Amino acid sequence: MERIKAVVYGVGAMNTIVTRMLLDKDVDIVGAISRSESKVGRDLGDLTELGRQLGVVVSDDAGEVFRQTRPDIAVIAVNSYMADAVEQLRICAEHGVNAVTISEEALFPWHTSPEITAELDRIAKSTGATLTGTGHQDTYWVNIVAMLMGTAHHISSVTGRASWNVDDYGPEVAGDQQVGRTTGQFEEWLRDSQRPPTFGRNVLDALVADTGLTVKSQTTRTRPDLAAESVFSQSLQKNIRAGDVIGFTDVDEIQTEEGPVFTFEMSGRVYGPDDGDINEWAIEGEPDLVLSNGAVPTQITTCTQMVNRIPDVIAAPAGFVTAEKLPRLRYRAFPLHTYLGGDR
Amino acid sequence: MERIKAVVYGVGAMNTIVTRMLLDKDVDIVGAISRSESKVGRDLGDLTELGRQLGVVVSDDAGEVFRQTRPDIAVIAVNSYMADAVEQLRICAEHGVNAVTISEEALFPWHTSPEITAELDRIAKSTGATLTGTGHQDTYWVNIVAMLMGTAHHISSVTGRASWNVDDYGPEVAGDQQVGRTTGQFEEWLRDSQRPPTFGRNVLDALVADTGLTVKSQTTRTRPDLAAESVFSQSLQKNIRAGDVIGFTDVDEIQTEEGPVFTFEMSGRVYGPDDGDINEWAIEGEPDLVLSNGAVPTQITTCTQMVNRIPDVIAAPAGFVTAEKLPRLRYRAFPLHTYLGGDR
Repeated sequence: MERIKAVVYGVGAMNTIVTRMLLDKDVDIVGAISRSESKVGRDLGDLTELGRQLGVVVSDDAGEVFRQTRPDIAVIAVNSYMADAVEQLRICAEHGVNAVTISEEALFPWHTSPEITAELDRIAKSTGATLTGTGHQDTYWVNIVAMLMGTAHHISSVTGRASWNVDDYGPEVAGDQQVGRTTGQFEEWLRDSQRPPTFGRNVLDALVADTGLTVKSQTTRTRPDLAAESVFSQSLQKNIRAGDVIGFTDVDEIQTEEGPVFTFEMSGRVYGPDDGDINEWAIEGEPDLVLSNGAVPTQITTCTQMVNRIPDVIAAPAGFVTAEKLPRLRYRAFPLHTYLGGDR
Repeated sequence: MERIKAVVYGVGAMNTIVTRMLLDKDVDIVGAISRSESKVGRDLGDLTELGRQLGVVVSDDAGEVFRQTRPDIAVIAVNSYMADAVEQLRICAEHGVNAVTISEEALFPWHTSPEITAELDRIAKSTGATLTGTGHQDTYWVNIVAMLMGTAHHISSVTGRASWNVDDYGPEVAGDQQVGRTTGQFEEWLRDSQRPPTFGRNVLDALVADTGLTVKSQTTRTRPDLAAESVFSQSLQKNIRAGDVIGFTDVDEIQTEEGPVFTFEMSGRVYGPDDGDINEWAIEGEPDLVLSNGAVPTQITTCTQMVNRIPDVIAAPAGFVTAEKLPRLRYRAFPLHTYLGGDR
């Protein structure tokens, strides 16, 4: 079995971590793609803090990289929504290159971006490529929950709670998350904003799809998270007064024709000293079941899953294959290519 | 797709629950097998508290039942160790009947009972049957842990803790678990007893097998659990004095050639008012990860998994197929037979 050839698509914080992990698992990185003028022409090793050059020069011409290197997989960390992600996924599909992306909507985009997804699925099937969205949500918000559901005889509701720290993602995200606004300003923004569907909806769509149940209705409610006492926002470098907004929580809910109700609360706010990323799920039914992962290192588990999913994506049938349809994720103790061909 | 035809093999507490769950999922129960004279000749519905007869008369002749009914699956809840379980599994295999069992050792018996397992595997392959051990441990001690491991880049250790209440299983089990002994009596018993391998070892064997790592050494240590204050044992109907034994904890450990160490602590003791079955796992590596399932309803999740695994076992290749090799468990919202044939 030959080593896996990968192209790193997007050279930012996440693919910097992923690059190191790919090399640790004996993946040959044969190309790197970025649109950033400050990165094009430079060596990927220099840009990803490896302390050595890789002999891989960053290019802004994805098609040319794919034609020259014919990789087994492209690992994409560029954007979040399908409206943007379609650009990278389409060029992968057109060149017959399997792709794994951490674009959040790509986790299960069939309902939130049906036309784009169907188009990508069609192109990928015509060239033999597989396109899959993964990341932290693959296991923690979908597959581990679906497995927990598999230990129930009857389910009436599935409820999840997760959170992330706005201060981890810089001032632009803090602004998007309404940090520092008054409740009045927040309500005004909420009323007037044209927000895209939440990623929580994609999570619930994947869970419901795995059960085969039928979506009856889907709602998203949003409530502000308020500072209980004055708190300092690292990303904005200012104090948020008690009572002002430190972020917000989206509550997605899907009701099914057959009865079970699926709810997911996602809170993005400025953390206090005792806060950490959580992942907590509760199933009501026979029996009642719960799951908690303590303080979850969300950024790292996004990168680990992008790497560990690669053998599953290469082996999957062609098309847009969502993560709940992949095999149960496994630890990759050995070089990634040794997981191809069914030997392990 | 026709309905699944099942034979209930063993008519005790667990298969009483399983019988109801099978009927709820539109499985046709076509036979029932028991060696108990008090049950043979009676209707399965009467014996399983359904409040109605099923037209299924309990037989003590498994071969005859299989020849008459040609079931798709046998659901076995009879015993715990392969030395005993081989009787039921062999007759299933010889008649080409798929079987799912909650015999604990059957979860991964390749190392603890290699000859028996190889023989059953050979017979099953010759007749096209699949034999699988499942139960609470399938998801909670193996597959959910293996999935969690799949979100790590590097693992140095995997440590699990689980517990069960001796008082749930009657006076014989309480005696086996040394409840009421002094520490001196316990040490004497521990020194002289010829205990079979722990079920914790089967759990770790399954986890290690899933990683492809190589077992270097395997140890089991046992320590008594002592009453912190006087506690009443329901099953023995007597008080256990402070300082005396309320059960014990087996600590299984597997060291691997490649480095990662796997440990599983299983505590079977008389519970105090604040105790409940736990399932807690911690992975050390990059990153550190944890999982907890709160208070786990172990008996029910043993039954649910025996039922929900049936489509996986019917669809699996022939032979002795352990649970870590089955697809990720799914919730069965619809009649079980609708999960065959790949439609869902």
